[in-house]
Amino acid sequence: MSQTVRILLFFLLLPLGGAFAQELPSWNDGASKQAIVEFVKKVTTEGGADYVAPEDRIAVFDNDGTLWTEQPFYFQLGFALDRVKALSPEHPEWKEKEPFKSVLAGDLKGIAKGGEKGMVELIMETHAGMTTDDFNRIVTDWFASARHPKTGKPYNEMTFLPMRELLDYLRANGFKTFIVSGGGVEFMRPITEKAYGIPPEQVVGSTITTQYALVDDTPVLNRLPKIDFVDDGPGKPVGINKFIGRRPIFAAGNSDGDYEMLRWVTAGPAPRFAMIVHHTDADREYAYDRKSDFGKLDKTLDEAASRNWLVVDMKADWKKIYAFDQ
Amino acid sequence: MSQTVRILLFFLLLPLGGAFAQELPSWNDGASKQAIVEFVKKVTTEGGADYVAPEDRIAVFDNDGTLWTEQPFYFQLGFALDRVKALSPEHPEWKEKEPFKSVLAGDLKGIAKGGEKGMVELIMETHAGMTTDDFNRIVTDWFASARHPKTGKPYNEMTFLPMRELLDYLRANGFKTFIVSGGGVEFMRPITEKAYGIPPEQVVGSTITTQYALVDDTPVLNRLPKIDFVDDGPGKPVGINKFIGRRPIFAAGNSDGDYEMLRWVTAGPAPRFAMIVHHTDADREYAYDRKSDFGKLDKTLDEAASRNWLVVDMKADWKKIYAFDQ
Repeated sequence: MSQTVRILLFFLLLPLGGAFAQELPSWNDGASKQAIVEFVKKVTTEGGADYVAPEDRIAVFDNDGTLWTEQPFYFQLGFALDRVKALSPEHPEWKEKEPFKSVLAGDLKGIAKGGEKGMVELIMETHAGMTTDDFNRIVTDWFASARHPKTGKPYNEMTFLPMRELLDYLRANGFKTFIVSGGGVEFMRPITEKAYGIPPEQVVGSTITTQYALVDDTPVLNRLPKIDFVDDGPGKPVGINKFIGRRPIFAAGNSDGDYEMLRWVTAGPAPRFAMIVHHTDADREYAYDRKSDFGKLDKTLDEAASRNWLVVDMKADWKKIYAFDQ
Repeated sequence: MSQTVRILLFFLLLPLGGAFAQELPSWNDGASKQAIVEFVKKVTTEGGADYVAPEDRIAVFDNDGTLWTEQPFYFQLGFALDRVKALSPEHPEWKEKEPFKSVLAGDLKGIAKGGEKGMVELIMETHAGMTTDDFNRIVTDWFASARHPKTGKPYNEMTFLPMRELLDYLRANGFKTFIVSGGGVEFMRPITEKAYGIPPEQVVGSTITTQYALVDDTPVLNRLPKIDFVDDGPGKPVGINKFIGRRPIFAAGNSDGDYEMLRWVTAGPAPRFAMIVHHTDADREYAYDRKSDFGKLDKTLDEAASRNWLVVDMKADWKKIYAFDQ
């Protein structure tokens, strides 16, 4: 090869090599990163056997434990607890009434004892009884002021940098990215655009019933103390079908609450990709799976290998967890 | 001005003039077209007082009577009637049972007599009891074979050309366009991409309850005979909030079923735009408003002027109705 050709090739390949090096920079080189990149290349290679048209490149992501931390409690539960404290002066009866009594005493185990019934009561008292505009403001204010008990950081900064890179990488390859979370849709929407580059209309989640009304001849939507839809477990394929209306080709989750979503996505005709974030890093984040109160990962982990779902090992696969890590 | 400058200016302005001439070509020049174009220029002029960032340029469109014809009956009702006929051999009891008896006799007035109860029964028998994949296939097949009683054309070709141009024009100006219809979301989604350039995930509509299940270990979503959400009247702002999650700045409707949507959209801080398609053309389409069984337009027409909602006069404002018109 002549020196000139060599130099020309060097400059021709430079941008290409540079682009590859830029992919998923917070992921360690290894099987996980390789599996993701290979899938994306496969479905975006025009003329290839596995090519997928851009409009069908739908990717869905669970939120709690997949895109951001979910320990020592779901951030939305943290919000509900703070709201109970803020509203307690107007509710002297809460001092003697569960689950509010446990909340005001800071007794997480007491709250857990109340089970689903207690949780629904907490949500109804803190998430309903105001207009959608008011709730949006309350949520936005909370994110601006509340701090995570372990890191001391605003909750919306505790997103996983490698996952944000993955979202960017997919979008750069023509994917449309959606959140499909058990969390309340109106709790997430005020912050998803900034946190993940995902606009409100691409956030699927649990919903409370709202009702149109006129107040002084101005239209409002009132949030009623009534669950409309639970986007968790078998509700996730239902939510995907209802809100998105076509089957995604890529799904990411981290718990048994994502099991049916991963099944639904990977049951479509190939190519499909599913991954699980496995929390293995007690130092930099948390380590938990089968026994956790939040984000229990058991059956989904058992079946991952036989179903060809990628298990991402947070400790081994990720160079950094949060953008604010040194 | 020198001849050279004149020629230079001519060539400089040519593409600009050309672009203006290309806007909404099936709309007659006049106040309606002018109002639309002025609004779009206003919200897209960077540095202007009314500039709206692209992510907030959300536009919502009713479907029946706004984007396509809704006479002599909603197309989805035509679908339901054809399904009853197709399924009738398996249901000999329908010959004696309303509303099926009237359907099989082709008696539209008899069907109307059954009221909402009859309509719900019709929908449940024809829209539930199969998987979402099966329903998608049935709808797609129906659109391929069924013909409109007046034009003899496939229903999905009976979209209004001026409205399709308006969708294109808004999208070319950075708007994200959504359908917000009382129609069933899974009846519309198979055809909206081709008919309007609107992908399934940007179609908001009424929904039936679906349930995740495994059939021979393959995940399916079953359509249950249960209404989940009615996206009509006061349901439209609810649907917009639930599915889109922010308030649109542009809304188009044609009936009292769109009233609350128009109120909700125009109650936001300025600039906002709302328009009503008024069916005034009995020759080229249909002429109806206050007395119609389908798409009744009464209160909304009364309040349009005082609320500054544009009333589009189909006969006067549109050069062509359908793309297939000569």
